[in-house]
Amino acid sequence: MPTFMDVHSGFVGVTLDQLTEAHHRDRAAQAAEGVEFGTAWVDPATGRAFCLSTGPSKEAVLRVHEHAGHPTTEIYEITLEVA
Amino acid sequence: MPTFMDVHSGFVGVTLDQLTEAHHRDRAAQAAEGVEFGTAWVDPATGRAFCLSTGPSKEAVLRVHEHAGHPTTEIYEITLEVA
Repeated sequence: MPTFMDVHSGFVGVTLDQLTEAHHRDRAAQAAEGVEFGTAWVDPATGRAFCLSTGPSKEAVLRVHEHAGHPTTEIYEITLEVA
Repeated sequence: MPTFMDVHSGFVGVTLDQLTEAHHRDRAAQAAEGVEFGTAWVDPATGRAFCLSTGPSKEAVLRVHEHAGHPTTEIYEITLEVA
């Protein structure tokens, strides 16, 4: 199953409660698309958010985010990873 | 110690060997700045790379990347994370 990193803008000033709620909305919608969201990292000062997921396609990830109310077109398929 | 996510462009077509070598250059340079690099994720189709680190400041992370030969000005301080 491919891995994706998506990048969101617009999370300026978001709180942990708000982020947790947004992440729960993704997780509530993900099963219908065969997507599984992992960790999300946010810089509230710039509003930039990064979110890892696995799923069948970028389009599936996008549909989950749309359903959850925070769509983004910046979705990258991660084929290389080093730790 | 703050956490940072940095975003690079220009890794189009990078191989795992090249990415590993680039990551090793970061790790070789990080101690002098008190930085520790974690996972790096790359989409070779678009050349976009994402890299987690901890360190004293964005400037310290930037200096390590400059020393390693792949500077970026897109460095975000991550203050919220959900899994």
